[in-house]
Amino acid sequence: MAKKNAFYAQSGGVTAVINASACGVIEACREHRDKIGTLYAGQNGIIGALHENLIDTSKETAASIKALKHTPGGAFGSCRYKMKDLKESTLEYERLVEVFRAHNIGYFFYNGGGDSADTCLKVSQISAKMGYPIQAIHIPKTIDNDLPFTDCSPGFGSVAKYVAVSTKEASLDIASMAASSTKIFILEVMGRHAGWIAASGGLAASEAGDAPHIIVFPEIPFVREEFIAKVQQTVAEKGYCVVVASEGASYADGALISGSLNKDAFGHQQLGGVAPTLASMVKHSLGYKYHYALADYLQRSARHVASKTDVEQAYAVGRAAVDKAVAGKTGIMVTIERGKGKTFSWTLGEASLAKVANVEKKMPRSFITKDGFGITQKARDYLQPLIMGEDYPPYKNGIPLYPKLKIVLAPKKLDTEFNG
Amino acid sequence: MAKKNAFYAQSGGVTAVINASACGVIEACREHRDKIGTLYAGQNGIIGALHENLIDTSKETAASIKALKHTPGGAFGSCRYKMKDLKESTLEYERLVEVFRAHNIGYFFYNGGGDSADTCLKVSQISAKMGYPIQAIHIPKTIDNDLPFTDCSPGFGSVAKYVAVSTKEASLDIASMAASSTKIFILEVMGRHAGWIAASGGLAASEAGDAPHIIVFPEIPFVREEFIAKVQQTVAEKGYCVVVASEGASYADGALISGSLNKDAFGHQQLGGVAPTLASMVKHSLGYKYHYALADYLQRSARHVASKTDVEQAYAVGRAAVDKAVAGKTGIMVTIERGKGKTFSWTLGEASLAKVANVEKKMPRSFITKDGFGITQKARDYLQPLIMGEDYPPYKNGIPLYPKLKIVLAPKKLDTEFNG
Repeated sequence: MAKKNAFYAQSGGVTAVINASACGVIEACREHRDKIGTLYAGQNGIIGALHENLIDTSKETAASIKALKHTPGGAFGSCRYKMKDLKESTLEYERLVEVFRAHNIGYFFYNGGGDSADTCLKVSQISAKMGYPIQAIHIPKTIDNDLPFTDCSPGFGSVAKYVAVSTKEASLDIASMAASSTKIFILEVMGRHAGWIAASGGLAASEAGDAPHIIVFPEIPFVREEFIAKVQQTVAEKGYCVVVASEGASYADGALISGSLNKDAFGHQQLGGVAPTLASMVKHSLGYKYHYALADYLQRSARHVASKTDVEQAYAVGRAAVDKAVAGKTGIMVTIERGKGKTFSWTLGEASLAKVANVEKKMPRSFITKDGFGITQKARDYLQPLIMGEDYPPYKNGIPLYPKLKIVLAPKKLDTEFNG
Repeated sequence: MAKKNAFYAQSGGVTAVINASACGVIEACREHRDKIGTLYAGQNGIIGALHENLIDTSKETAASIKALKHTPGGAFGSCRYKMKDLKESTLEYERLVEVFRAHNIGYFFYNGGGDSADTCLKVSQISAKMGYPIQAIHIPKTIDNDLPFTDCSPGFGSVAKYVAVSTKEASLDIASMAASSTKIFILEVMGRHAGWIAASGGLAASEAGDAPHIIVFPEIPFVREEFIAKVQQTVAEKGYCVVVASEGASYADGALISGSLNKDAFGHQQLGGVAPTLASMVKHSLGYKYHYALADYLQRSARHVASKTDVEQAYAVGRAAVDKAVAGKTGIMVTIERGKGKTFSWTLGEASLAKVANVEKKMPRSFITKDGFGITQKARDYLQPLIMGEDYPPYKNGIPLYPKLKIVLAPKKLDTEFNG
């Protein structure tokens, strides 16, 4: 096999550990210099490939690449960009292959969620049809933890840890204040259709009865009366009530608790506003003073409190993608497989992208308590290991040291601009 | 001097390090067993004293007390309770002295902000008038950093660090997404009348031009057109714009940017909603996609990312309060004094409560850049040392180990209930 270059891109919402995957990819490529030439990274994700804006990662020092392992965000830029449906146009995919061919790129590493798994599969298929077969490997990443065939998705464990730690800390705050002041605290967390992130708030409880007292899942149709009754009962028993609410929580008819209807490039609704809506329900029905927090981007960028397990898995799936490519694999996603033993362990595997693309893994109903407001021991057993371990970034002047890359673009080789 | 017991109470909004002050008080009292008998803590602050709900701290192990140094929230409970004005009624103060006399309490350590400094002073004065003089020492605590005569207020440094770190991390996130998605990120932070917390977001910037690009201070009258122009200019130059906004930010006529008008027990307005208001201004004027976070209680309870400097100062002011009481002092607040040298250093001092009570320290105008949207080098020089150093709590099962106290109430001695 003639030595080919490689391409790596970050896709969709970034995480605290997506750069750890980038680090794994780059370091592994550098170790495979016999088989892999230059590794280019897409500037702002796949858009960078379409526009031939390829970052030459060979210009970055080993120390800078190593630092990616502790730096949140997407170091090369990510994007929310939905490739056109093939029925509509094959232009975008053909352009990708054209750019890859011009730069002698034979390996495509795509780091993202369900949408990018689909793109990855199509690149693998169309490039073969076009007579320039590209080995396309998907590297899992999504805080939503909704990718199938993998025990978890890198990025999730660190959000889960952030939410568990924040819920624990805020609970101690409100417990101190409840006698004379705030009695209700609501933390709104991400998770469009799956309640994995909200569920992780449940790990804040060390003992039965500990906060959070209520988790509002997107999987459980919301019934206002039941929610209010549970809040009232909790305040009667504990003096206060801590709620973790998923942004995607909705009523039985599918209407979101929040009312926001903005849509992003994927046609997903842009959510927000569950916490204030729940808070005003409580105020209206029970009169309690409330506080609420909206963690938003803070939860998925909080590298300072990342899960060591998550960091290690993110790094490992990046490395494994390269190893699998070198071994001749294509059209697969690297997966994390949990060991069967009592002590948590994991190894890496793979799944066919044909099976992965656009399948969404929801929380099993058995992870949610019968009343719909808490997590079961089964959920706890699954979630707990994913937040284990601390992996602090280095600090300078009181804040984490998150160095910037040089970001040197490779000279363009095509004389055509992409006009999408 | 006959051996007297002591009383400690936490007041107002709790912090990540108020328990470190409690730890300092308790450990120092235990070292002064020759002069100080039992240290009681007010259950839920001063309300505990009024109702004779006194927690016997001697029932807690040395290990539990030591753990307070890394545990956020108020371990004994705090309260928002404004003592009645003396012109209206002296009943509450007389009741306090009555309870203190019944339990042979000669030392009163009150851990709070401006309101509690005022209470502390009055206890000292009224107890003397009532023929049962109590040595009242105020231990500074407020995330708002608005206490006078002290270089800073314990609790602030850790919020400042949380806000600086969070701003830095969220900035990396949005920088990754801006090309195709979110261009504006707004972090709403606490600070009713003083912009100290918002200013600390400025520490996220390592170089000129780094995020945050705009800070919205309560000290600077908000002008919508100037704000929008600055956002537009920043997006044109950087591709995105990060804003840190104080909950107390308002227009020239004093109207809050947020519209909320709830009031707490002190008659302060309960704020919230600056971020969504600014976000919709931007959306309306410029059309940019935005995200915003509301840190709320997370910022003041985030012990996991506390400032080591803050933890040490909080602990030290607690210890010093006891030392000063034993040395015969009363009617004072322990202060932190910054050394004059180039290298940051601090020592402890004291200020008369007569001067401290109800004085609010605002940010000097010289800390804010001419355009009103940033911090100056002078501000940076002041703020930087306060967030220096990390002081991680121990973790178990992926979350910090924040142990609970036993909380054993002392038997009541009075046969009267307090009816306020």
